[in-house]
Amino acid sequence: MKKDLRTMDHLMYMEYYTGRNAGIFMKIKKMLHSYQSPYQRIDIFEHPDFGKVFALDGITMMTEVDEFMYHEMLVHVPLFVHPEPRRVLIIGGGDGGSLREALKHPSIEEAILCEIDPYVIEAAKKYLPTAVEMDNPKAKIVNENGAEFIKKYKDYFDAIIVDSTDPTAGEGGHLFTKEFYKNCFEALKEDGVFSAETEDPFYDKGWVAIAYNRISSAFPISKLYTGFMTTYPSGLWTYVFASKKYHPIDDFDPSRVQNFDHQLKYYNEDIHKACFVLPNFIKELINE
Amino acid sequence: MKKDLRTMDHLMYMEYYTGRNAGIFMKIKKMLHSYQSPYQRIDIFEHPDFGKVFALDGITMMTEVDEFMYHEMLVHVPLFVHPEPRRVLIIGGGDGGSLREALKHPSIEEAILCEIDPYVIEAAKKYLPTAVEMDNPKAKIVNENGAEFIKKYKDYFDAIIVDSTDPTAGEGGHLFTKEFYKNCFEALKEDGVFSAETEDPFYDKGWVAIAYNRISSAFPISKLYTGFMTTYPSGLWTYVFASKKYHPIDDFDPSRVQNFDHQLKYYNEDIHKACFVLPNFIKELINE
Amino acid sequence: MKKDLRTMDHLMYMEYYTGRNAGIFMKIKKMLHSYQSPYQRIDIFEHPDFGKVFALDGITMMTEVDEFMYHEMLVHVPLFVHPEPRRVLIIGGGDGGSLREALKHPSIEEAILCEIDPYVIEAAKKYLPTAVEMDNPKAKIVNENGAEFIKKYKDYFDAIIVDSTDPTAGEGGHLFTKEFYKNCFEALKEDGVFSAETEDPFYDKGWVAIAYNRISSAFPISKLYTGFMTTYPSGLWTYVFASKKYHPIDDFDPSRVQNFDHQLKYYNEDIHKACFVLPNFIKELINE
Amino acid sequence: MKKDLRTMDHLMYMEYYTGRNAGIFMKIKKMLHSYQSPYQRIDIFEHPDFGKVFALDGITMMTEVDEFMYHEMLVHVPLFVHPEPRRVLIIGGGDGGSLREALKHPSIEEAILCEIDPYVIEAAKKYLPTAVEMDNPKAKIVNENGAEFIKKYKDYFDAIIVDSTDPTAGEGGHLFTKEFYKNCFEALKEDGVFSAETEDPFYDKGWVAIAYNRISSAFPISKLYTGFMTTYPSGLWTYVFASKKYHPIDDFDPSRVQNFDHQLKYYNEDIHKACFVLPNFIKELINE
Repeated sequence: MKKDLRTMDHLMYMEYYTGRNAGIFMKIKKMLHSYQSPYQRIDIFEHPDFGKVFALDGITMMTEVDEFMYHEMLVHVPLFVHPEPRRVLIIGGGDGGSLREALKHPSIEEAILCEIDPYVIEAAKKYLPTAVEMDNPKAKIVNENGAEFIKKYKDYFDAIIVDSTDPTAGEGGHLFTKEFYKNCFEALKEDGVFSAETEDPFYDKGWVAIAYNRISSAFPISKLYTGFMTTYPSGLWTYVFASKKYHPIDDFDPSRVQNFDHQLKYYNEDIHKACFVLPNFIKELINE
Repeated sequence: MKKDLRTMDHLMYMEYYTGRNAGIFMKIKKMLHSYQSPYQRIDIFEHPDFGKVFALDGITMMTEVDEFMYHEMLVHVPLFVHPEPRRVLIIGGGDGGSLREALKHPSIEEAILCEIDPYVIEAAKKYLPTAVEMDNPKAKIVNENGAEFIKKYKDYFDAIIVDSTDPTAGEGGHLFTKEFYKNCFEALKEDGVFSAETEDPFYDKGWVAIAYNRISSAFPISKLYTGFMTTYPSGLWTYVFASKKYHPIDDFDPSRVQNFDHQLKYYNEDIHKACFVLPNFIKELINE
Repeated sequence: MKKDLRTMDHLMYMEYYTGRNAGIFMKIKKMLHSYQSPYQRIDIFEHPDFGKVFALDGITMMTEVDEFMYHEMLVHVPLFVHPEPRRVLIIGGGDGGSLREALKHPSIEEAILCEIDPYVIEAAKKYLPTAVEMDNPKAKIVNENGAEFIKKYKDYFDAIIVDSTDPTAGEGGHLFTKEFYKNCFEALKEDGVFSAETEDPFYDKGWVAIAYNRISSAFPISKLYTGFMTTYPSGLWTYVFASKKYHPIDDFDPSRVQNFDHQLKYYNEDIHKACFVLPNFIKELINE
Repeated sequence: MKKDLRTMDHLMYMEYYTGRNAGIFMKIKKMLHSYQSPYQRIDIFEHPDFGKVFALDGITMMTEVDEFMYHEMLVHVPLFVHPEPRRVLIIGGGDGGSLREALKHPSIEEAILCEIDPYVIEAAKKYLPTAVEMDNPKAKIVNENGAEFIKKYKDYFDAIIVDSTDPTAGEGGHLFTKEFYKNCFEALKEDGVFSAETEDPFYDKGWVAIAYNRISSAFPISKLYTGFMTTYPSGLWTYVFASKKYHPIDDFDPSRVQNFDHQLKYYNEDIHKACFVLPNFIKELINE
């Protein structure tokens, strides 16, 4: 019988948050994978409490125990606003968690995951439980720069979900530009919806405002929303919902959530509405 | 001209979260105060981004830049439910932040701060901006064990606010017992309201459920609510509102918040309602 | 072309020294191996400057760049005192470094490496350059408890080298007992020599004195000597030479070192004599 | 009765060694002093085992428990070679340890301590036990740049001791130049002696060779010697003895050490000779 590794004090993962004056540390039970791709350093390790932890260039992308908070909020908010999303594009999201959530919606016919780094996909398939739907026949994985890939489509998608890394890490910056958001608008059908992760307003407050303002200038409807994300910097994560036509609350039908076939762990119909309520300091940050 | 200290990499504060498998690290710009009281080790330091940071036994109690999130949510939720709170008791809360928030309510005539450790009060007065109202004539500071002090009162307070340390640190455990909550009930007037910080559901999930269940067994009305608290473990903080008579939402009058004389940084009338909306995993944790 | 991993700040090895109030930290370039054997946790990683680093239960056993300091001093001091060592027993020493040094002596006919943990041998063969001589026909590897194994031999070995882990780690304690040293004495021929690593006099000062005194009570001749060991706690390492007959300096023939076929990196004929010169505080520690 | 501070895990001092890929960590019991002088950040703290620890720009200058190793080796090696040192100049050495050792020699009539930073002197006097002789009437403290100060003297000192910080820290670099060593030569009397700390050959191997070669080009006699220094990087410290006339071993009279009035903790007459014996890798480093 093989003995399980004993977690000690000797192997430590340290993520320095933006500004490098603070961060999170996690004890490492076992390193599972480390790889230097052309884009970034990929690490996956086992944590005694968090399960698998996946990091790019030393920035935590997800841990097994709380990734649901992030992926459910990023994906279900737009997909429950659109009445019948059929074609969805996920940009980034190489761990597969957003894809998994999107494919829970029965109307989805085609889900394209555009992850720039094929080594992330490979690692996710081998090590991460989030990758569970990567071989679903409705899913199509392409390894291209999302900022370029989006230009190929006009009036095509019902939903675009931007599941990027930090704007300051790897190729993340390309996914925070005005031009990119404009191209997302173009690639959406006339009633298309959009969501993007837009960082935290504590360590990265500048980026929250920049991303929100840029998205707002590209879409007629845009709203910032928040969610807890317990292993991300500050635990307070922001997202922006944007849309050509549907209002995130007025056009939201709670009964669709109530009748959903899947048991979710974070998102529910009340959270859908409550997540758009902002603390004063965040309102101020985005001048709302 | 005195030169400001340069923050380097050489002085680090590390808070190990419950379970000791993860935690937050912060660079120290300057240590301001360290003292071993009969109850705990008290440390206050300057952080380059967070301002003053105050810790008891190595657990962060507050940082200057985000304490408003915690103090506003702990204090204003109950005080805006009660129509006219006059007498408030704050148990714990030695940094003074809860007292400061309570005294923003003009109806308050008497605010007792029962902090067991006089050395915390002394340090707060000397170093922490949160202590600003400790000399307010309406405020009365007593250094007693809150779990004992509460027994002296029956049918007296309009509001009791439990601003304790962790149940596992110092004397914090006394403030998480059934008997204590029962005594809080007794010390409240017939329409009294109550709030308590009840830890985070990620690192301390057991305590959230225990505290909620114990409070629920002592009060006819009780509701868990959440708030972001960016430098606390997980960033997701829970509180319990409890009451003898008033319902936290049905009896809440948003116009009182709108007409409030003070500019708050987190709490607003919409947050008041949204904070009671719980993600599914927290509902499940408390069997709601 | 595969890209080399970029060492960042996010993976850290921390060895807490005895007392746990200080220690060494090393950035990890790549974890190569982690295994929980029945005896201990085995870790091997790549450090950007130190090459391979090998640790047992979070205690550094060797790094590729400086292991020569330790292995040369542990092995050559006794083997250059004995005029013609043929049979040598190495107890512990699972990385193979002591074996490699011993086999540089052309008179050696049989070198037994008694390492309790077969998983250490396996890992060393796969990952560590020190294991280079493990398949030498003169070498014989046995996986037994050295403290038991030694009892099988009487009047057999020319030299015994105790290359143990810390007395407080894993099975290390068995190799620091009076009985063990007595059994080493018995297993040696009438002119046999002995050496043992005996910790550092800064973090483990108690053990230096204990080991020295116990060895001294078992052998007629015993001398403490020191060497630099740059990645071990304090950098100041002690060893004890003991012998049934030969004096470490009076019976030492420098010409044998001068005519040695191998280029050594630390040990030389002058070091042989100088290493027995002790700073006053170490003399005092062992009452010399 | 005031309670002693309990050392926990929450305050950590981390010294990154040259290259920043490894370093030492120490738990902090209590910070005693932090000051940003025009030259450097000065920190003094209490460690549970090491007593007072003094650091400049995050580099450990000394700890109370092992500073004797460094100061005795830096000072007594040259002062026991010179037959009757009367005038000694210490450059750097702001903690006072070298001054204290120098003044143990009864022949000393004038000991000048040239420490560039007056705030180091002030802090040392207030906090460090090493400063014990700073008010000795034979001592004179000047706060000037040593590289400039030395130019004022010709044929004046019997001994010059360079007790600098790292060449890469603060103003340390000025004390590692050819010109500086040449000026030291000029400032010495015809039989003057010199010593300098020259870093460690593990993390700073380049500097050891550079310093040795530059000193060798300025003095007819020069020899590298080593000593253990348990809280310095690698624990292996190098020094260079240089001299206009006296040979460090041939002109050394051990009886002077034996008859010395002071009880030393590291240095003795045998160490004096043994410390010039170099491991092969250090010989190679300096091409000896």
